Amino acid sequence: MTDPQIDRRAFTEAMLAFAATITVSGADALASPDAAPAKHDMSNMPKHWFGKERIAFLIYPGFTALDMVGPHYMLSGMMGATTHIVARSADPVKSDAGLVFTPSATFDDVARAGVDILCVPGGSSGTLAAMRDDATIAFVRDVGARAKYVTSVCTGSMILGAAGLLDGYKATSHWVTKPILPVFGAIPASGRVVRDRNRVTAEGVTAGIDFGLSLVAELRDRDYAESLQLLAQYAPEPPFSAGDPETAPKATKDLVQEMFQDFVGEMRKAAIAAHKKGARL
Amino acid sequence: MTDPQIDRRAFTEAMLAFAATITVSGADALASPDAAPAKHDMSNMPKHWFGKERIAFLIYPGFTALDMVGPHYMLSGMMGATTHIVARSADPVKSDAGLVFTPSATFDDVARAGVDILCVPGGSSGTLAAMRDDATIAFVRDVGARAKYVTSVCTGSMILGAAGLLDGYKATSHWVTKPILPVFGAIPASGRVVRDRNRVTAEGVTAGIDFGLSLVAELRDRDYAESLQLLAQYAPEPPFSAGDPETAPKATKDLVQEMFQDFVGEMRKAAIAAHKKGARL
Repeated sequence: MTDPQIDRRAFTEAMLAFAATITVSGADALASPDAAPAKHDMSNMPKHWFGKERIAFLIYPGFTALDMVGPHYMLSGMMGATTHIVARSADPVKSDAGLVFTPSATFDDVARAGVDILCVPGGSSGTLAAMRDDATIAFVRDVGARAKYVTSVCTGSMILGAAGLLDGYKATSHWVTKPILPVFGAIPASGRVVRDRNRVTAEGVTAGIDFGLSLVAELRDRDYAESLQLLAQYAPEPPFSAGDPETAPKATKDLVQEMFQDFVGEMRKAAIAAHKKGARL
Repeated sequence: MTDPQIDRRAFTEAMLAFAATITVSGADALASPDAAPAKHDMSNMPKHWFGKERIAFLIYPGFTALDMVGPHYMLSGMMGATTHIVARSADPVKSDAGLVFTPSATFDDVARAGVDILCVPGGSSGTLAAMRDDATIAFVRDVGARAKYVTSVCTGSMILGAAGLLDGYKATSHWVTKPILPVFGAIPASGRVVRDRNRVTAEGVTAGIDFGLSLVAELRDRDYAESLQLLAQYAPEPPFSAGDPETAPKATKDLVQEMFQDFVGEMRKAAIAAHKKGARL
């Protein structure tokens, strides 16, 4: 019996190994028709399908679970990569909607080893608290400065910004907090996922899935990413077209924007305070 | 300081309360221009925006986190609803990709109170184990028989089927397990989300987001669902079109299908065994 804790990874590995086998046997079939490789023969896989990325997702009280779980689905499907869910302590962390996650590592563990990909999810008042938490910002600044990819989903970009990691970079955020980006020296840019050098920021919540899939394509290849997309049956059919402020009914957009006004005001204050603090370091 | 554990809920409530206020003031503005209701005045909200649904998401070792977290984002955003993450015991449960969740309730807790909405996420070998676990199947059968909505995402439909809850119902599943549905007496049907009376089954993994949003529209209304969609910035932009077996490159589809062959065989055996066992009850 497969260990159910790692079965999707194992399954993906087997699937992709098999895909590689077929590709190879397709090319070699005429040359040596009797030498069809055995199923699941990993040795036939393209070497670039294996990696050694150390990936860390930050979590903190009040984070939005879907911001993390969406890209986690995609990135954890990369063969050879190691994924950690990192928090300030080893205690369970509750999301904004009440889901309770146990971290797999603490700030100290991850800071010591360093990471290749740092991903910071967003939230609302929990994110505001994280921006004001010295230990969280110090961790993100330290690990982010050494990471190959510094990434965020939704208002997670506010935490990257507070840590001084978006200064001079094009970036995006949840649409309600995007106008705050310039406080951090960031340049708000268009796109569901915005890439500037090694900074990759995604728009609100569900944009994390698109971000994750596109990063898999970059770190492995398109065939690999498409296999994961098919595994996730990611052919979305939103029942309405209200997901973007440009396509949502104007009344809905105006109302949400006005409703978020106080929150955005608090976020802006926290951003200014963090930026000043960073400048003094 | 808002409790970050419930901030999204509180935020959504405030947002929607405000939306209601505007709608009312818009209608009443000419009649009494000075009587604009105060911000966040919940008394002006449509009564049907509040509910009392008791929602339970089943989790089990090796489940796919995104199957649960996607619809959880949407359904937990319904004002007045109570959401539980239920498992066989109170111990933490590890997902297929290694995420560790602490349940908020056990089978006994939830069975005693009953639920209005039961949602069962999928997985691969973990789901196979759950189909063969008497306690899990007995729980799903008992609670499902009394629920107002019996729902699943991805291969979660295999668990519903094993519990005898899809017999005579149109349903769907992850595309690789969909052909197994007839073993349970279910009728495979087209659609990202399939509804037959009170059974609602979604296709693979990411279809859970579409399912959640459409159920919110049904249980509240379209305006409410659109507000949540805008909050989630759910305007997906998959970088490739491989998410559906019909649109994926044929080679990718054929390979995944062939690769899943052994797994599907095991699933079919488990389905036949569960169906026989159910018929003897």
